[in-house]
Amino acid sequence: MHPLLEAIAQRSSLNHFDAEARLDDADIRELIGWASRAPSAFNLQNWRFIAVRSESGKQRLRQLAWDQPKVSEAAVTFILCGVLPDTAQLPARLQSSVNAGFMPAAMPHTWQQAAEQLYSDSPLARRDEAVRSATLAAATLMQAGQALGLGACPMTGFDTEAVASSFGLGADEIPVMLVAMGRARAGNWPQKPRRPLEQILELA
Amino acid sequence: MHPLLEAIAQRSSLNHFDAEARLDDADIRELIGWASRAPSAFNLQNWRFIAVRSESGKQRLRQLAWDQPKVSEAAVTFILCGVLPDTAQLPARLQSSVNAGFMPAAMPHTWQQAAEQLYSDSPLARRDEAVRSATLAAATLMQAGQALGLGACPMTGFDTEAVASSFGLGADEIPVMLVAMGRARAGNWPQKPRRPLEQILELA
Repeated sequence: MHPLLEAIAQRSSLNHFDAEARLDDADIRELIGWASRAPSAFNLQNWRFIAVRSESGKQRLRQLAWDQPKVSEAAVTFILCGVLPDTAQLPARLQSSVNAGFMPAAMPHTWQQAAEQLYSDSPLARRDEAVRSATLAAATLMQAGQALGLGACPMTGFDTEAVASSFGLGADEIPVMLVAMGRARAGNWPQKPRRPLEQILELA
Repeated sequence: MHPLLEAIAQRSSLNHFDAEARLDDADIRELIGWASRAPSAFNLQNWRFIAVRSESGKQRLRQLAWDQPKVSEAAVTFILCGVLPDTAQLPARLQSSVNAGFMPAAMPHTWQQAAEQLYSDSPLARRDEAVRSATLAAATLMQAGQALGLGACPMTGFDTEAVASSFGLGADEIPVMLVAMGRARAGNWPQKPRRPLEQILELA
């Protein structure tokens, strides 16, 4: 089987982490370097990552996430923040693509106009984009984790307002997801069975 | 380099697809089978996939997506629908995990209560969950596509209301993303440069 398919087949959301296993900050930086290669609309890269790996930070986060032990037992629990799109930042974000020689110099401005059309007067469209970008980054983060022999658990059961306040998120940042990551210990479940294809696929 | 990291490094959002390349319905079923193995909160699997692969369907969708040629030049463009969580369906969704022998029989009901706590009285939390689940499925779909030698372009620039109406989405379904997928032709850009790590990572 192709390694990319094998990874999909073998992935499951961990509940039990080896609480003794640690990741050093260099590992965390490498993981986020990979996560940031996820796609985002207009290459906005409208995300920020808080790697909660200190014991005090993990305990604080755990209390805001229904006291779930995996938050602190994992080597690191990431707060994946989606940022509401700020189209004024887009030209600067794309300048490196112009400098690299493949993007025409006029294109960042054209993209900025398209982005303004998409997001202006629609707070919901901006929020959705923040949720999408952070979620795509979460998926890429978990893929990179698998490559390094790490398991993960994406979590949405937490007090979003309290996490935003306690970890100092900006007014334009949404805590979209927690991703607990570390070494699995015994006792985790296999991947859960899925709904049949007939219920979820329509050909048009 | 580990194949999972190589895939992250080599992925880029395609703009140009080989318009002659086709996928048969068996390929599409296989791709969605893999996509459905993405994680979702409580294993709700709150997603639905419309595979637009007929010429008429692709042209209709293209008109609702800023007339972007890739929508019809790709072998298939998927409409990734996120479904607003319906906690009443959760016990049925989890029964196969009970039947498989690893989930205690009482747990689906416990999870249902937790899900009700998370989503009740919060239309925004339900919407966010729909966007997250469909986006995680999109990421897994693109990963499976890479394994089959296919490139992809995730797209959010489209008229969501018109797509929902034209493709018959239910009242509880949100068209979260389009994913154009097919064989690359020449002329695509490399992966765009990313923001420096110092701007996006905080250690806590």
